[in-house]
Amino acid sequence: MKHVELLTAKQVERVHDASLWVLENVGILAHHPPAREIFKAHGCRVEADGLVKFPPEVVAKYLRVCPTSFTFRGRDPQYDRTIPDCGPVVVTGSSAPNVVDPATGVERRATSTDIANIAHLINELKGFDIFSISTLADDAPPGQFSLSRFYPALKNCLKPVRSNTPNMDDLRQVIRLGELIAGGADAYRERPIINHHYCPMVSPLTMDVDSTEAVMYLTERGLPVYTTVVPNAGLTSPMTLMGTLIVGNAEFLAITVFQQMVKEGTPIIYASLPTVADMRTGAYAPGAIETGMLCMAQAQLGHFYNVPTGGYIGLTNAHSNDAQSGYETGMNTLGAVLAGATLLNMGGLFSSLMAFDFGKAVVDDEIAIMNKRVVRGMEFNEDNLALDVIAQVGPGGDFMKSKHTKSLMKTTAVFPKVADRGMRAQWEAAGRPDAQSRARAVARGILSQPNAAVWAPELDAQIRAEFPGLVAGEATWKEDETTA
Amino acid sequence: MKHVELLTAKQVERVHDASLWVLENVGILAHHPPAREIFKAHGCRVEADGLVKFPPEVVAKYLRVCPTSFTFRGRDPQYDRTIPDCGPVVVTGSSAPNVVDPATGVERRATSTDIANIAHLINELKGFDIFSISTLADDAPPGQFSLSRFYPALKNCLKPVRSNTPNMDDLRQVIRLGELIAGGADAYRERPIINHHYCPMVSPLTMDVDSTEAVMYLTERGLPVYTTVVPNAGLTSPMTLMGTLIVGNAEFLAITVFQQMVKEGTPIIYASLPTVADMRTGAYAPGAIETGMLCMAQAQLGHFYNVPTGGYIGLTNAHSNDAQSGYETGMNTLGAVLAGATLLNMGGLFSSLMAFDFGKAVVDDEIAIMNKRVVRGMEFNEDNLALDVIAQVGPGGDFMKSKHTKSLMKTTAVFPKVADRGMRAQWEAAGRPDAQSRARAVARGILSQPNAAVWAPELDAQIRAEFPGLVAGEATWKEDETTA
Repeated sequence: MKHVELLTAKQVERVHDASLWVLENVGILAHHPPAREIFKAHGCRVEADGLVKFPPEVVAKYLRVCPTSFTFRGRDPQYDRTIPDCGPVVVTGSSAPNVVDPATGVERRATSTDIANIAHLINELKGFDIFSISTLADDAPPGQFSLSRFYPALKNCLKPVRSNTPNMDDLRQVIRLGELIAGGADAYRERPIINHHYCPMVSPLTMDVDSTEAVMYLTERGLPVYTTVVPNAGLTSPMTLMGTLIVGNAEFLAITVFQQMVKEGTPIIYASLPTVADMRTGAYAPGAIETGMLCMAQAQLGHFYNVPTGGYIGLTNAHSNDAQSGYETGMNTLGAVLAGATLLNMGGLFSSLMAFDFGKAVVDDEIAIMNKRVVRGMEFNEDNLALDVIAQVGPGGDFMKSKHTKSLMKTTAVFPKVADRGMRAQWEAAGRPDAQSRARAVARGILSQPNAAVWAPELDAQIRAEFPGLVAGEATWKEDETTA
Repeated sequence: MKHVELLTAKQVERVHDASLWVLENVGILAHHPPAREIFKAHGCRVEADGLVKFPPEVVAKYLRVCPTSFTFRGRDPQYDRTIPDCGPVVVTGSSAPNVVDPATGVERRATSTDIANIAHLINELKGFDIFSISTLADDAPPGQFSLSRFYPALKNCLKPVRSNTPNMDDLRQVIRLGELIAGGADAYRERPIINHHYCPMVSPLTMDVDSTEAVMYLTERGLPVYTTVVPNAGLTSPMTLMGTLIVGNAEFLAITVFQQMVKEGTPIIYASLPTVADMRTGAYAPGAIETGMLCMAQAQLGHFYNVPTGGYIGLTNAHSNDAQSGYETGMNTLGAVLAGATLLNMGGLFSSLMAFDFGKAVVDDEIAIMNKRVVRGMEFNEDNLALDVIAQVGPGGDFMKSKHTKSLMKTTAVFPKVADRGMRAQWEAAGRPDAQSRARAVARGILSQPNAAVWAPELDAQIRAEFPGLVAGEATWKEDETTA
């Protein structure tokens, strides 16, 4: 596929030059003193107020040592994914405080049991490649905020698990959990199956303390970590797509250069969640088409830098699984994929990033599979031109009985599970089920089965011995059948 | 924008060559004897069984005389649209037998009053450029099947109106209606405001009688008419995307060459509705992602031939305005637009092409506006880079109070009417309205107002005198408020 380009090559270069100008003349405000030291030791000018200014040649030097790919590892190596080559790699949306209760349909605080159920679902849905832990866990015991998320997630999912931590204690606990699963610190370093993600850049042009510290810690140890930039036009970046692209790009360059200064050759991703505020109310609008456009332009920048790109693409502002939810997630993911983005954090969340819903995750799985079908492409080859079949069937003929049709009928097109292609009368007779009710039936079918992904009791005992008081982390699906 | 390309330039050429091979060796079955005469008189070989074989040089000769643009005209010239330059030009879906009754929510046969109401709505929705008459009229008096559709449509809409007719009597009546509106036959020839569309090509590789006759008649007279090819992989074309592309392309070349043989320089559109049958049931699946992909590839062929492209892109199989309806219409329209298609027959229909819905039309208007925003692009210019604003606001600053933000806050991004960007709690408090209920409220707001597009009583009297017994054609919106 030759990707769509919203900018010319010359315009991309101008964005790069403008970003360098911003880094050299406006700078980045770095709140974490050790980060300032690193910048200073590697050629940046650090001013008294914490402003870091970047000489263009310093940026160029550290850009040159960036790897061109990033690998996510899972408990089962068959689920390892490397971008850009395996793209689009599809990831769930992350860290919503709430879940739409599958029994009542009402939003409530999410728990570690919800995370276990979600992990089970994502493990089974073929469109998803990576489980970014979709919610927080309101039942976390004191001192186990992050463990209460990572433990149920990892226990119930063989695919790569991804999330963040709020502080260093939590981060060290989570890495220890990974080592126990891997069978020791050396084995874990060999196959680090926890994939860390942070937003150390706070727009405009600021680096925070806690996330910066976590990124430094992980980068020093060669553990997988990547970051996302999140400019919001009208509030934290200029009210133009171009100005917002430049702020985000300058931030990406700053954090990327930082990671390379900490350890040259650290794999990175150009990930973003750029938005334009809806200035009628100031509302956050990650489902807007402008987010998709910014992600498309950013994919071009990623190609310019020869690094994998993606981000939170396909979020929706919708509060239920309605037409808005469908077109916001569908349009922005497809746009980004056609522009060459290879990482989509897209699945399962309503209300921007506020609430996980099981039916939404199933619909998003279907959207993910459609995006992957597009990337598979037209399958051009001489056999597929089917000229002999066209000649044989002839004008006015019927292809249905052809052997050629029978041999390809299961592979040419996606067979959706949720999309209804039946007759309208059948649908009326079935009580007019919408996509959401069909999707919830799919989720129910998966979650009412035992989860083969759960690890051995011996490992579980070992982990629970190391972390007393740990949440149960069992995928126990309970749904009132009457509300199904 | 540099469009996405699913095929390489070499693959596009191979599709062209393969299509020429099909036309020369397999041929087209032409059922209409006068059409066979035209083919014969212009260099094709016509065999005894009605098979027409095309020497490649004949195809090449008539392709060379195709204009590169097509113009749709409306009652008010400000709504005239020429593609590709004005693209994407957005058209309603057409000729559904049914409407979802706005009062009861139940599907029923559509009437001429429904057409009048739909015309009023489409006249007001800014995302739509052309009103392709969305339904049939079940109340048509004998002998006025088409008049009962065109009359309420034209009376209530200043934008270009488009549809077909089932026979020559109907076609002549409709043209006479156009002449009355224009103020005479000469004035109508000058500005033909009825835009005709037919599907004379029946896949695979067959030309019918009635539509072919209509296309000939209109082409001879220089009246605007274009055609759509509709291969369906697995039934009327091979079960590969490439084979289906080739069958459709051969059909497009045949009908295009035919129109040029009838009158050189006739404006045409490369329009299609390619599908892959869902072979689990044989279901028709115009909402599938493979339809979008075929339209994307076909846009590349259109660029190769330097003619405008588009078609029925963005139809949905969904029976209600749910997530499926949103992602099917959203994804396929955006994919086609990013590939350079400039005509989208996308709005307002459920269940493939079975039922019009007022709320669906409003949601599709919003999707149309999003697609147009993407085509407007990143708006690259030195001012929009906003480097001075970035420097002035500085790291950690706030762009909200900047003059720059205030001056651009109403134009940078789309302000959607249907998409909900409020807080989840507000939405819960409002009774959890989904996109469909918000969309229906928008439709209600428009249709409860008088329609300024209705023509003068004098013209109406003149038309009604010429066609006694004509339907009323009044947009009279009646909705039970309790079901709203």
